[in-house]
Amino acid sequence: MPETPYSGRFAAGEHLFAIRVYFEDTDAGGVVYHASYLRFMERARSDMMRLAGVDQRGAMERGDGNYVVYAMALRFRAPARLDDALVVRSRVGNMKGAQCVVHQRVMRGSETVIEAEVSVALIGPDGRPKRQPRAWIETFERLKTED
Amino acid sequence: MPETPYSGRFAAGEHLFAIRVYFEDTDAGGVVYHASYLRFMERARSDMMRLAGVDQRGAMERGDGNYVVYAMALRFRAPARLDDALVVRSRVGNMKGAQCVVHQRVMRGSETVIEAEVSVALIGPDGRPKRQPRAWIETFERLKTED
Amino acid sequence: MPETPYSGRFAAGEHLFAIRVYFEDTDAGGVVYHASYLRFMERARSDMMRLAGVDQRGAMERGDGNYVVYAMALRFRAPARLDDALVVRSRVGNMKGAQCVVHQRVMRGSETVIEAEVSVALIGPDGRPKRQPRAWIETFERLKTED
Amino acid sequence: MPETPYSGRFAAGEHLFAIRVYFEDTDAGGVVYHASYLRFMERARSDMMRLAGVDQRGAMERGDGNYVVYAMALRFRAPARLDDALVVRSRVGNMKGAQCVVHQRVMRGSETVIEAEVSVALIGPDGRPKRQPRAWIETFERLKTED
Repeated sequence: MPETPYSGRFAAGEHLFAIRVYFEDTDAGGVVYHASYLRFMERARSDMMRLAGVDQRGAMERGDGNYVVYAMALRFRAPARLDDALVVRSRVGNMKGAQCVVHQRVMRGSETVIEAEVSVALIGPDGRPKRQPRAWIETFERLKTED
Repeated sequence: MPETPYSGRFAAGEHLFAIRVYFEDTDAGGVVYHASYLRFMERARSDMMRLAGVDQRGAMERGDGNYVVYAMALRFRAPARLDDALVVRSRVGNMKGAQCVVHQRVMRGSETVIEAEVSVALIGPDGRPKRQPRAWIETFERLKTED
Repeated sequence: MPETPYSGRFAAGEHLFAIRVYFEDTDAGGVVYHASYLRFMERARSDMMRLAGVDQRGAMERGDGNYVVYAMALRFRAPARLDDALVVRSRVGNMKGAQCVVHQRVMRGSETVIEAEVSVALIGPDGRPKRQPRAWIETFERLKTED
Repeated sequence: MPETPYSGRFAAGEHLFAIRVYFEDTDAGGVVYHASYLRFMERARSDMMRLAGVDQRGAMERGDGNYVVYAMALRFRAPARLDDALVVRSRVGNMKGAQCVVHQRVMRGSETVIEAEVSVALIGPDGRPKRQPRAWIETFERLKTED
Protein backbone atom coordinates (compact mmCIF):
# COMPACT_ATOMS: atom_id res chain seq x y z
CA MET A 1 0.00 0.00 0.00
CA PRO A 2 1.49 3.34 -0.95
CA GLU A 3 1.86 5.92 1.79
CA THR A 4 -0.38 8.90 1.03
CA PRO A 5 -0.36 12.36 2.62
CA TYR A 6 -2.80 13.17 5.38
CA SER A 7 -5.48 15.74 4.40
CA GLY A 8 -7.70 15.95 7.50
CA ARG A 9 -11.48 15.46 7.29
CA PHE A 10 -14.82 17.27 7.51
CA ALA A 11 -16.99 16.91 10.60
CA ALA A 12 -20.08 18.93 11.54
CA GLY A 13 -19.41 21.54 8.87
CA GLU A 14 -15.78 22.08 9.85
CA HIS A 15 -12.53 20.84 8.40
CA LEU A 16 -10.29 19.22 11.04
CA PHE A 17 -6.57 19.00 10.40
CA ALA A 18 -4.09 17.60 12.97
CA ILE A 19 -0.55 18.97 13.13
CA ARG A 20 2.52 17.96 15.09
CA VAL A 21 4.89 20.72 16.20
CA TYR A 22 8.44 20.07 14.96
CA PHE A 23 11.74 21.90 15.67
CA GLU A 24 11.26 23.86 12.40
CA ASP A 25 8.11 25.48 13.86
CA THR A 26 9.63 26.67 17.14
CA ASP A 27 11.95 29.51 18.14
CA ALA A 28 14.51 30.29 20.83
CA GLY A 29 11.71 31.40 23.16
CA GLY A 30 10.88 27.68 23.44
CA VAL A 31 7.48 28.08 21.78
CA VAL A 32 5.98 27.99 18.28
CA TYR A 33 7.14 31.02 16.24
CA HIS A 34 4.11 33.23 15.58
CA ALA A 35 4.38 33.10 11.77
CA SER A 36 4.39 29.27 11.85
CA TYR A 37 0.67 29.31 12.65
CA LEU A 38 0.03 31.00 9.28
CA ARG A 39 1.76 28.06 7.60
CA PHE A 40 -0.36 25.60 9.63
CA MET A 41 -3.55 27.41 8.64
CA GLU A 42 -2.55 27.56 4.96
CA ARG A 43 -2.00 23.78 4.96
CA ALA A 44 -5.44 23.31 6.48
CA ARG A 45 -7.15 25.62 3.98
CA SER A 46 -5.36 23.93 1.07
CA ASP A 47 -6.44 20.47 2.18
CA MET A 48 -9.96 21.67 2.93
CA MET A 49 -10.17 22.81 -0.69
CA ARG A 50 -8.56 19.60 -1.93
CA LEU A 51 -11.12 17.49 -0.04
CA ALA A 52 -13.88 19.70 -1.43
CA GLY A 53 -12.67 18.95 -4.95
CA VAL A 54 -10.99 22.29 -5.74
CA ASP A 55 -7.74 21.69 -7.65
CA GLN A 56 -5.57 24.75 -6.80
CA ARG A 57 -2.54 23.79 -8.89
CA GLY A 58 -4.66 22.82 -11.88
CA ALA A 59 -6.61 26.08 -11.64
CA MET A 60 -3.36 28.05 -11.51
CA GLU A 61 -1.89 26.14 -14.46
CA ARG A 62 -5.07 26.54 -16.56
CA GLY A 63 -5.04 30.29 -15.89
CA ASP A 64 -8.18 30.05 -13.73
CA GLY A 65 -6.45 31.98 -10.97
CA ASN A 66 -5.56 31.25 -7.39
CA TYR A 67 -6.65 32.32 -3.93
CA VAL A 68 -4.62 34.97 -2.12
CA VAL A 69 -4.97 36.21 1.44
CA TYR A 70 -5.87 39.92 1.55
CA ALA A 71 -6.66 40.38 5.25
CA MET A 72 -6.16 38.56 8.53
CA ALA A 73 -7.18 39.18 12.11
CA LEU A 74 -5.22 37.01 14.53
CA ARG A 75 -5.50 36.48 18.27
CA PHE A 76 -2.79 34.39 19.93
CA ARG A 77 -4.36 32.84 23.06
CA ALA A 78 -1.75 30.37 24.36
CA PRO A 79 1.71 29.25 23.30
CA ALA A 80 2.22 25.83 21.70
CA ARG A 81 5.44 23.88 22.16
CA LEU A 82 7.67 21.26 20.53
CA ASP A 83 5.90 17.90 20.01
CA ASP A 84 2.45 19.31 20.79
CA ALA A 85 -0.43 17.71 18.91
CA LEU A 86 -2.59 20.51 17.49
CA VAL A 87 -5.80 20.54 15.47
CA VAL A 88 -6.66 23.29 12.99
CA ARG A 89 -10.46 23.78 12.76
CA SER A 90 -11.54 25.64 9.62
CA ARG A 91 -15.04 26.87 8.78
CA VAL A 92 -15.91 28.61 5.53
CA GLY A 93 -17.93 31.76 6.18
CA ASN A 94 -19.37 34.16 3.66
CA MET A 95 -18.49 33.55 -0.05
CA LYS A 96 -19.42 36.37 -2.39
CA GLY A 97 -18.01 37.37 -5.75
CA ALA A 98 -14.26 36.89 -5.56
CA GLN A 99 -14.16 36.93 -1.77
CA CYS A 100 -14.37 34.29 0.92
CA VAL A 101 -13.90 34.44 4.69
CA VAL A 102 -12.47 31.44 6.54
CA HIS A 103 -12.71 31.17 10.32
CA GLN A 104 -9.83 29.15 11.73
CA ARG A 105 -8.86 28.08 15.21
CA VAL A 106 -5.79 26.12 16.24
CA MET A 107 -6.61 23.95 19.26
CA ARG A 108 -4.56 21.84 21.69
CA GLY A 109 -7.19 19.54 23.11
CA SER A 110 -9.97 21.85 24.28
CA GLU A 111 -7.67 24.86 24.61
CA THR A 112 -7.59 27.53 21.90
CA VAL A 113 -4.04 28.38 20.82
CA ILE A 114 -4.89 30.90 18.12
CA GLU A 115 -8.06 32.29 16.50
CA ALA A 116 -8.04 33.77 13.03
CA GLU A 117 -10.37 35.36 10.55
CA VAL A 118 -8.78 34.96 7.14
CA SER A 119 -10.10 36.87 4.12
CA VAL A 120 -9.10 35.42 0.78
CA ALA A 121 -9.89 36.40 -2.80
CA LEU A 122 -9.68 34.54 -6.06
CA ILE A 123 -7.24 36.39 -8.32
CA GLY A 124 -6.85 35.84 -12.06
CA PRO A 125 -3.53 35.62 -13.92
CA ASP A 126 -3.90 39.38 -14.59
CA GLY A 127 -3.83 40.03 -10.83
CA ARG A 128 -7.48 41.12 -10.74
CA PRO A 129 -10.28 39.66 -8.57
CA LYS A 130 -12.26 36.93 -10.28
CA ARG A 131 -15.75 35.65 -9.47
CA GLN A 132 -15.59 32.27 -7.71
CA PRO A 133 -17.10 29.42 -9.78
CA ARG A 134 -20.68 28.64 -8.75
CA ALA A 135 -19.73 24.95 -8.33
CA TRP A 136 -17.17 25.83 -5.65
CA ILE A 137 -19.63 28.00 -3.74
CA GLU A 138 -22.29 25.29 -3.83
CA THR A 139 -19.80 22.69 -2.63
CA PHE A 140 -18.81 24.75 0.39
CA GLU A 141 -22.44 25.62 1.18
CA ARG A 142 -23.25 21.90 1.19
CA LEU A 143 -20.23 20.97 3.34
CA LYS A 144 -21.26 23.52 5.96
CA THR A 145 -24.57 21.79 6.57
CA GLU A 146 -23.34 18.20 6.42
CA ASP A 147 -22.20 16.06 9.31
CA MET B 1 36.86 46.70 8.56
CA PRO B 2 34.56 43.94 9.78
CA GLU B 3 31.25 43.48 8.01
CA THR B 4 28.39 44.21 10.42
CA PRO B 5 24.68 43.45 10.03
CA TYR B 6 22.34 46.14 8.82
CA SER B 7 19.84 47.33 11.47
CA GLY B 8 17.94 50.14 9.73
CA ARG B 9 17.62 53.61 11.25
CA PHE B 10 15.18 56.02 12.90
CA ALA B 11 13.78 58.98 10.95
CA ALA B 12 10.92 61.28 11.93
CA GLY B 13 9.81 59.01 14.74
CA GLU B 14 9.75 55.87 12.62
CA HIS B 15 12.16 52.98 12.24
CA LEU B 16 13.05 52.32 8.58
CA PHE B 17 14.33 48.89 7.60
CA ALA B 18 15.12 47.92 3.99
CA ILE B 19 14.61 44.32 2.85
CA ARG B 20 15.44 42.51 -0.37
CA VAL B 21 13.06 39.74 -1.49
CA TYR B 22 14.91 36.44 -1.99
CA PHE B 23 13.72 33.09 -3.37
CA GLU B 24 13.15 31.87 0.21
CA ASP B 25 10.44 34.54 0.66
CA THR B 26 8.42 33.71 -2.46
CA ASP B 27 6.01 30.94 -3.44
CA ALA B 28 4.82 29.16 -6.57
CA GLY B 29 2.27 31.94 -7.16
CA GLY B 30 5.31 34.06 -8.15
CA VAL B 31 4.85 36.48 -5.25
CA VAL B 32 5.98 36.84 -1.63
CA TYR B 33 4.35 34.15 0.55
CA HIS B 34 1.96 35.90 2.97
CA ALA B 35 3.64 34.60 6.15
CA SER B 36 7.03 35.94 4.98
CA TYR B 37 5.85 39.46 5.76
CA LEU B 38 5.54 38.49 9.43
CA ARG B 39 9.20 37.50 9.37
CA PHE B 40 10.13 40.82 7.73
CA MET B 41 8.19 42.74 10.36
CA GLU B 42 9.73 40.74 13.24
CA ARG B 43 13.23 41.58 11.93
CA ALA B 44 12.29 45.25 11.83
CA ARG B 45 10.82 45.23 15.37
CA SER B 46 13.89 43.39 16.70
CA ASP B 47 16.30 45.89 15.16
CA MET B 48 14.15 48.83 16.24
CA MET B 49 14.51 47.56 19.82
CA ARG B 50 18.22 46.91 19.34
CA LEU B 51 18.80 50.47 18.09
CA ALA B 52 16.73 51.74 21.04
CA GLY B 53 19.07 49.94 23.41
CA VAL B 54 16.78 47.03 24.40
CA ASP B 55 18.80 43.79 24.61
CA GLN B 56 16.23 41.04 23.88
CA ARG B 57 18.58 38.07 24.23
CA GLY B 58 20.15 39.46 27.40
CA ALA B 59 16.71 40.12 28.91
CA MET B 60 15.62 36.55 28.07
CA GLU B 61 18.82 35.06 29.54
CA ARG B 62 18.58 37.15 32.73
CA GLY B 63 14.98 36.03 33.23
CA ASP B 64 13.64 39.54 32.51
CA GLY B 65 11.20 38.11 29.98
CA ASN B 66 10.66 38.60 26.28
CA TYR B 67 8.09 40.19 24.00
CA VAL B 68 5.47 37.96 22.38
CA VAL B 69 2.88 38.87 19.76
CA TYR B 70 -0.67 38.39 21.08
CA ALA B 71 -2.72 40.00 18.30
CA MET B 72 -2.27 41.13 14.72
CA ALA B 73 -4.47 42.85 12.18
CA LEU B 74 -3.06 42.57 8.67
CA ARG B 75 -4.12 44.08 5.38
CA PHE B 76 -2.32 42.88 2.24
CA ARG B 77 -2.52 45.71 -0.32
CA ALA B 78 -0.26 44.64 -3.19
CA PRO B 79 1.94 41.64 -3.96
CA ALA B 80 5.73 41.93 -3.74
CA ARG B 81 8.01 39.87 -5.99
CA LEU B 82 11.48 38.33 -6.20
CA ASP B 83 14.28 40.93 -6.01
CA ASP B 84 11.95 43.74 -4.92
CA ALA B 85 13.48 46.32 -2.60
CA LEU B 86 11.07 46.87 0.29
CA VAL B 87 11.12 49.12 3.33
CA VAL B 88 9.45 48.23 6.64
CA ARG B 89 8.27 51.38 8.46
CA SER B 90 7.60 50.79 12.18
CA ARG B 91 6.07 53.23 14.65
CA VAL B 92 5.60 52.46 18.32
CA GLY B 93 2.09 53.34 19.48
CA ASN B 94 0.62 53.06 22.94
CA MET B 95 2.83 51.42 25.64
CA LYS B 96 1.02 50.59 28.86
CA GLY B 97 1.78 48.00 31.53
CA ALA B 98 2.96 44.88 29.74
CA GLN B 99 1.44 45.88 26.40
CA CYS B 100 2.69 47.76 23.38
CA VAL B 101 1.20 48.38 19.94
CA VAL B 102 3.45 48.69 16.90
CA HIS B 103 2.14 50.07 13.62
CA GLN B 104 4.02 48.62 10.67
CA ARG B 105 3.82 49.13 6.94
CA VAL B 106 5.85 47.40 4.26
CA MET B 107 6.41 49.74 1.32
CA ARG B 108 7.78 49.38 -2.21
CA GLY B 109 8.70 52.92 -3.07
CA SER B 110 5.55 54.93 -2.33
CA GLU B 111 3.24 51.92 -2.67
CA THR B 112 1.95 50.12 0.44
CA VAL B 113 2.41 46.35 0.22
CA ILE B 114 1.03 45.45 3.66
CA GLU B 115 -0.25 47.31 6.70
CA ALA B 116 -0.21 45.79 10.16
CA GLU B 117 -1.16 46.59 13.70
CA VAL B 118 0.90 44.33 15.94
CA SER B 119 0.09 43.97 19.64
CA VAL B 120 2.93 42.63 21.75
CA ALA B 121 3.28 41.96 25.46
CA LEU B 122 6.28 41.49 27.70
CA ILE B 123 6.07 38.03 29.25
CA GLY B 124 8.13 36.80 32.21
CA PRO B 125 9.78 33.36 32.44
CA ASP B 126 6.62 32.19 34.26
CA GLY B 127 4.56 32.99 31.15
CA ARG B 128 2.76 35.90 32.81
CA PRO B 129 2.58 39.51 31.60
CA LYS B 130 5.26 41.75 33.08
CA ARG B 131 5.30 45.54 33.40
CA GLN B 132 7.64 47.08 30.81
CA PRO B 133 10.66 48.83 32.40
CA ARG B 134 10.18 52.60 32.68
CA ALA B 135 13.50 53.15 30.89
CA TRP B 136 12.22 51.33 27.81
CA ILE B 137 8.98 53.31 27.73
CA GLU B 138 10.85 56.61 28.08
CA THR B 139 13.24 55.64 25.30
CA PHE B 140 10.43 54.90 22.87
CA GLU B 141 8.54 58.07 23.85
CA ARG B 142 11.67 60.08 23.09
CA LEU B 143 12.30 58.32 19.75
CA LYS B 144 8.76 59.11 18.61
CA THR B 145 9.32 62.83 18.90
CA GLU B 146 12.85 62.97 17.49
CA ASP B 147 13.84 63.57 13.89
CA MET C 1 -12.71 10.43 17.88
CA PRO C 2 -10.01 13.06 18.32
CA GLU C 3 -7.94 13.94 15.27
CA THR C 4 -4.31 12.93 15.87
CA PRO C 5 -1.20 13.92 13.90
CA TYR C 6 0.17 11.59 11.27
CA SER C 7 3.58 10.06 12.16
CA GLY C 8 4.29 7.69 9.27
CA ARG C 9 5.15 4.02 9.82
CA PHE C 10 7.97 1.48 9.66
CA ALA C 11 8.12 -1.05 6.81
CA ALA C 12 11.00 -3.35 5.91
CA GLY C 13 13.43 -1.56 8.19
CA GLU C 14 12.61 1.90 6.86
CA HIS C 15 10.44 4.70 8.18
CA LEU C 16 7.94 5.95 5.57
CA PHE C 17 6.51 9.44 5.92
CA ALA C 18 4.14 10.99 3.35
CA ILE C 19 4.21 14.74 2.75
CA ARG C 20 2.03 17.05 0.68
CA VAL C 21 3.72 20.07 -0.94
CA TYR C 22 1.99 23.32 0.08
CA PHE C 23 2.53 26.91 -1.08
CA GLU C 24 4.79 27.51 1.95
CA ASP C 25 7.27 24.94 0.57
CA THR C 26 7.59 26.36 -2.93
CA ASP C 27 9.37 29.36 -4.45
CA ALA C 28 9.01 31.72 -7.41
CA GLY C 29 10.83 29.20 -9.62
CA GLY C 30 7.62 27.16 -9.39
CA VAL C 31 9.29 24.29 -7.52
CA VAL C 32 9.99 23.27 -3.93
CA TYR C 33 12.59 25.60 -2.35
CA HIS C 34 15.74 23.57 -1.70
CA ALA C 35 15.85 24.22 2.06
CA SER C 36 12.26 22.95 2.43
CA TYR C 37 13.51 19.39 1.92
CA LEU C 38 15.56 19.73 5.11
CA ARG C 39 12.37 20.56 6.97
CA PHE C 40 10.62 17.53 5.42
CA MET C 41 13.49 15.27 6.45
CA GLU C 42 13.59 16.68 10.00
CA ARG C 43 9.86 15.93 10.40
CA ALA C 44 10.48 12.37 9.22
CA ARG C 45 13.45 11.84 11.58
CA SER C 46 11.47 13.29 14.50
CA ASP C 47 8.51 11.00 13.89
CA MET C 48 10.78 8.01 13.29
CA MET C 49 12.22 8.64 16.76
CA ARG C 50 8.77 9.21 18.24
CA LEU C 51 7.50 5.87 16.82
CA ALA C 52 10.66 4.19 18.16
CA GLY C 53 9.80 5.49 21.63
CA VAL C 54 12.43 8.26 21.90
CA ASP C 55 10.89 11.33 23.60
CA GLN C 56 12.94 14.28 22.23
CA ARG C 57 11.16 17.04 24.16
CA GLY C 58 11.24 15.05 27.41
CA ALA C 59 14.95 14.29 26.96
CA MET C 60 15.67 17.97 26.33
CA GLU C 61 13.61 19.06 29.37
CA ARG C 62 15.25 16.45 31.65
CA GLY C 63 18.71 17.64 30.56
CA ASP C 64 19.37 14.38 28.69
CA GLY C 65 20.37 16.32 25.61
CA ASN C 66 19.08 16.52 22.06
CA TYR C 67 20.18 15.46 18.60
CA VAL C 68 21.82 18.04 16.34
CA VAL C 69 22.80 17.71 12.69
CA TYR C 70 26.59 18.09 12.22
CA ALA C 71 26.99 17.07 8.57
CA MET C 72 24.84 16.58 5.49
CA ALA C 73 25.48 15.41 1.96
CA LEU C 74 22.58 16.23 -0.34
CA ARG C 75 21.88 15.37 -3.96
CA PHE C 76 18.85 17.01 -5.59
CA ARG C 77 17.70 14.67 -8.39
CA ALA C 78 14.38 16.13 -9.59
CA PRO C 79 12.21 19.11 -8.69
CA ALA C 80 8.98 18.63 -6.75
CA ARG C 81 6.01 20.95 -7.24
CA LEU C 82 2.92 22.35 -5.51
CA ASP C 83 0.42 19.63 -4.47
CA ASP C 84 2.88 16.78 -5.12
CA ALA C 85 2.52 13.77 -2.84
CA LEU C 86 5.99 12.84 -1.59
CA VAL C 87 7.29 10.09 0.68
CA VAL C 88 10.38 10.48 2.88
CA ARG C 89 12.14 7.11 3.35
CA SER C 90 14.52 7.09 6.34
CA ARG C 91 16.92 4.32 7.31
CA VAL C 92 19.12 4.47 10.40
CA GLY C 93 22.72 3.54 9.56
CA ASN C 94 25.66 3.31 11.91
CA MET C 95 25.07 4.34 15.57
CA LYS C 96 28.24 4.70 17.64
CA GLY C 97 28.96 6.74 20.75
CA ALA C 98 27.20 10.06 20.30
CA GLN C 99 26.90 9.72 16.52
CA CYS C 100 24.29 8.35 14.19
CA VAL C 101 23.95 8.39 10.41
CA VAL C 102 20.50 8.51 8.80
CA HIS C 103 20.03 7.77 5.11
CA GLN C 104 17.04 9.63 3.71
CA ARG C 105 15.42 9.78 0.31
CA VAL C 106 12.45 11.86 -0.74
CA MET C 107 10.44 10.04 -3.42
CA ARG C 108 7.57 10.97 -5.74
CA GLY C 109 6.20 7.58 -6.66
CA SER C 110 9.22 5.61 -7.87
CA GLU C 111 11.23 8.72 -8.73
CA THR C 112 13.92 10.01 -6.36
CA VAL C 113 13.58 13.74 -5.67
CA ILE C 114 16.47 14.09 -3.21
CA GLU C 115 18.97 11.79 -1.53
CA ALA C 116 20.64 12.69 1.74
CA GLU C 117 23.13 11.33 4.21
CA VAL C 118 22.48 13.06 7.50
CA SER C 119 24.98 12.83 10.38
CA VAL C 120 23.54 13.66 13.78
CA ALA C 121 25.03 13.67 17.26
CA LEU C 122 23.47 13.61 20.71
CA ILE C 123 24.56 16.77 22.53
CA GLY C 124 24.19 17.37 26.28
CA PRO C 125 22.99 20.63 27.87
CA ASP C 126 26.70 21.60 28.14
CA GLY C 127 26.99 21.46 24.35
CA ARG C 128 29.26 18.40 24.40
CA PRO C 129 28.66 15.06 22.65
CA LYS C 130 26.92 12.48 24.82
CA ARG C 131 26.87 8.69 24.45
CA GLN C 132 23.51 7.52 23.07
CA PRO C 133 21.51 5.40 25.58
CA ARG C 134 21.92 1.67 24.96
CA ALA C 135 18.13 1.28 24.88
CA TRP C 136 17.83 3.68 21.92
CA ILE C 137 20.59 1.86 19.98
CA GLU C 138 18.95 -1.53 20.60
CA THR C 139 15.57 -0.20 19.49
CA PHE C 140 16.92 1.07 16.17
CA GLU C 141 18.91 -2.12 15.60
CA ARG C 142 15.71 -4.11 16.07
CA LEU C 143 13.64 -1.84 13.80
CA LYS C 144 16.18 -2.28 11.00
CA THR C 145 15.67 -6.03 10.89
CA GLU C 146 11.90 -6.06 11.31
CA ASP C 147 9.33 -6.12 8.59
CA MET D 1 17.60 59.54 1.09
CA PRO D 2 15.72 56.33 0.35
CA GLU D 3 16.61 53.29 2.44
CA THR D 4 18.09 50.57 0.18
CA PRO D 5 18.66 46.90 0.96
CA TYR D 6 22.09 45.72 2.05
CA SER D 7 23.86 43.49 -0.52
CA GLY D 8 27.27 42.84 1.05
CA ARG D 9 30.52 43.52 -0.84
CA PHE D 10 33.46 41.86 -2.54
CA ALA D 11 36.88 41.78 -0.85
CA ALA D 12 39.94 39.76 -1.86
CA GLY D 13 37.98 37.62 -4.30
CA GLU D 14 35.23 36.77 -1.81
CA HIS D 15 31.73 38.09 -1.29
CA LEU D 16 31.09 39.13 2.33
CA PHE D 17 27.52 39.29 3.59
CA ALA D 18 26.63 40.12 7.20
CA ILE D 19 23.54 38.58 8.80
CA ARG D 20 21.81 39.12 12.13
CA VAL D 21 20.14 36.08 13.74
CA TYR D 22 16.45 36.77 14.47
CA PHE D 23 13.83 34.69 16.30
CA GLU D 24 12.60 33.35 12.93
CA ASP D 25 16.00 31.64 12.42
CA THR D 26 16.18 29.84 15.76
CA ASP D 27 14.49 26.76 17.24
CA ALA D 28 13.49 25.42 20.64
CA GLY D 29 17.02 24.04 21.12
CA GLY D 30 18.03 27.70 21.61
CA VAL D 31 20.23 27.74 18.50
CA VAL D 32 19.86 28.50 14.78
CA TYR D 33 17.74 25.83 13.05
CA HIS D 34 20.00 23.90 10.65
CA ALA D 35 17.95 24.68 7.51
CA SER D 36 18.14 28.43 8.26
CA TYR D 37 21.80 28.42 7.17
CA LEU D 38 20.68 27.38 3.68
CA ARG D 39 18.49 30.49 3.57
CA PHE D 40 21.43 32.65 4.73
CA MET D 41 23.67 31.17 2.04
CA GLU D 42 21.04 31.62 -0.68
CA ARG D 43 20.71 35.32 0.24
CA ALA D 44 24.49 35.68 -0.02
CA ARG D 45 24.69 33.91 -3.40
CA SER D 46 21.81 36.00 -4.75
CA ASP D 47 23.43 39.27 -3.70
CA MET D 48 26.84 38.11 -4.94
CA MET D 49 25.25 37.62 -8.36
CA ARG D 50 23.39 40.94 -8.12
CA LEU D 51 26.63 42.80 -7.33
CA ALA D 52 28.30 40.97 -10.22
CA GLY D 53 25.58 42.28 -12.54
CA VAL D 54 23.60 39.05 -13.01
CA ASP D 55 19.86 39.82 -13.02
CA GLN D 56 18.20 36.59 -11.78
CA ARG D 57 14.61 37.76 -11.98
CA GLY D 58 15.12 39.34 -15.41
CA ALA D 59 16.79 36.15 -16.70
CA MET D 60 13.91 34.05 -15.38
CA GLU D 61 11.29 36.39 -16.92
CA ARG D 62 13.08 36.51 -20.31
CA GLY D 63 13.23 32.68 -20.37
CA ASP D 64 17.02 32.68 -19.94
CA GLY D 65 16.72 30.21 -17.07
CA ASN D 66 17.64 30.29 -13.42
CA TYR D 67 20.21 28.67 -11.13
CA VAL D 68 19.16 25.66 -9.09
CA VAL D 69 21.11 23.83 -6.38
CA TYR D 70 21.77 20.20 -7.35
CA ALA D 71 24.22 19.14 -4.63
CA MET D 72 25.41 20.36 -1.23
CA ALA D 73 27.99 19.17 1.26
CA LEU D 74 27.52 20.81 4.65
CA ARG D 75 29.58 20.69 7.83
CA PHE D 76 28.07 22.33 10.91
CA ARG D 77 31.00 23.38 13.15
CA ALA D 78 29.46 25.47 15.92
CA PRO D 79 25.95 26.62 16.87
CA ALA D 80 24.89 30.22 16.30
CA ARG D 81 22.36 31.92 18.58
CA LEU D 82 19.74 34.68 18.69
CA ASP D 83 21.20 38.15 18.00
CA ASP D 84 24.54 36.77 16.77
CA ALA D 85 26.24 38.81 14.05
CA LEU D 86 27.35 36.39 11.32
CA VAL D 87 29.18 36.86 8.04
CA VAL D 88 28.66 34.62 5.02
CA ARG D 89 31.88 34.37 2.94
CA SER D 90 31.23 33.11 -0.62
CA ARG D 91 33.87 32.23 -3.22
CA VAL D 92 33.00 31.10 -6.73
CA GLY D 93 34.96 27.97 -7.69
CA ASN D 94 34.91 26.11 -10.97
CA MET D 95 32.40 27.31 -13.63
CA LYS D 96 31.98 24.98 -16.58
CA GLY D 97 29.09 24.50 -19.01
CA ALA D 98 25.91 24.79 -16.95
CA GLN D 99 27.63 24.10 -13.63
CA CYS D 100 29.19 26.23 -10.96
CA VAL D 101 30.58 25.42 -7.51
CA VAL D 102 30.33 27.99 -4.72
CA HIS D 103 32.35 27.60 -1.53
CA GLN D 104 30.58 29.22 1.41
CA ARG D 105 31.43 29.63 5.06
CA VAL D 106 29.32 31.24 7.75
CA MET D 107 31.56 32.89 10.36
CA ARG D 108 31.00 34.46 13.79
CA GLY D 109 34.10 36.61 14.14
CA SER D 110 37.00 34.26 13.43
CA GLU D 111 35.00 31.12 14.29
CA THR D 112 33.52 28.96 11.53
CA VAL D 113 29.85 28.15 12.15
CA ILE D 114 29.21 26.16 8.96
CA GLU D 115 31.17 25.23 5.83
CA ALA D 116 29.42 24.36 2.58
CA GLU D 117 30.22 23.34 -0.95
CA VAL D 118 27.22 24.25 -3.06
CA SER D 119 26.85 22.95 -6.62
CA VAL D 120 24.45 24.92 -8.79
CA ALA D 121 23.40 24.60 -12.42
CA LEU D 122 21.76 26.99 -14.81
CA ILE D 123 18.46 25.46 -15.92
CA GLY D 124 16.37 26.64 -18.86
CA PRO D 125 12.56 27.03 -18.86
CA ASP D 126 12.42 23.47 -20.27
CA GLY D 127 14.10 22.16 -17.12
CA ARG D 128 17.31 21.23 -18.95
CA PRO D 129 20.86 22.43 -18.14
CA LYS D 130 21.90 25.50 -20.09
CA ARG D 131 25.44 26.77 -20.83
CA GLN D 132 26.26 29.78 -18.64
CA PRO D 133 26.73 33.01 -20.65
CA ARG D 134 30.40 33.77 -21.34
CA ALA D 135 29.93 37.28 -19.89
CA TRP D 136 28.89 35.82 -16.50
CA ILE D 137 31.89 33.46 -16.42
CA GLU D 138 34.31 36.27 -17.28
CA THR D 139 32.80 38.51 -14.61
CA PHE D 140 33.28 35.91 -11.87
CA GLU D 141 36.81 35.08 -13.07
CA ARG D 142 37.69 38.77 -12.81
CA LEU D 143 36.08 39.18 -9.35
CA LYS D 144 38.14 36.25 -8.04
CA THR D 145 41.41 37.98 -8.79
CA GLU D 146 40.42 41.49 -7.69
CA ASP D 147 40.95 43.04 -4.29
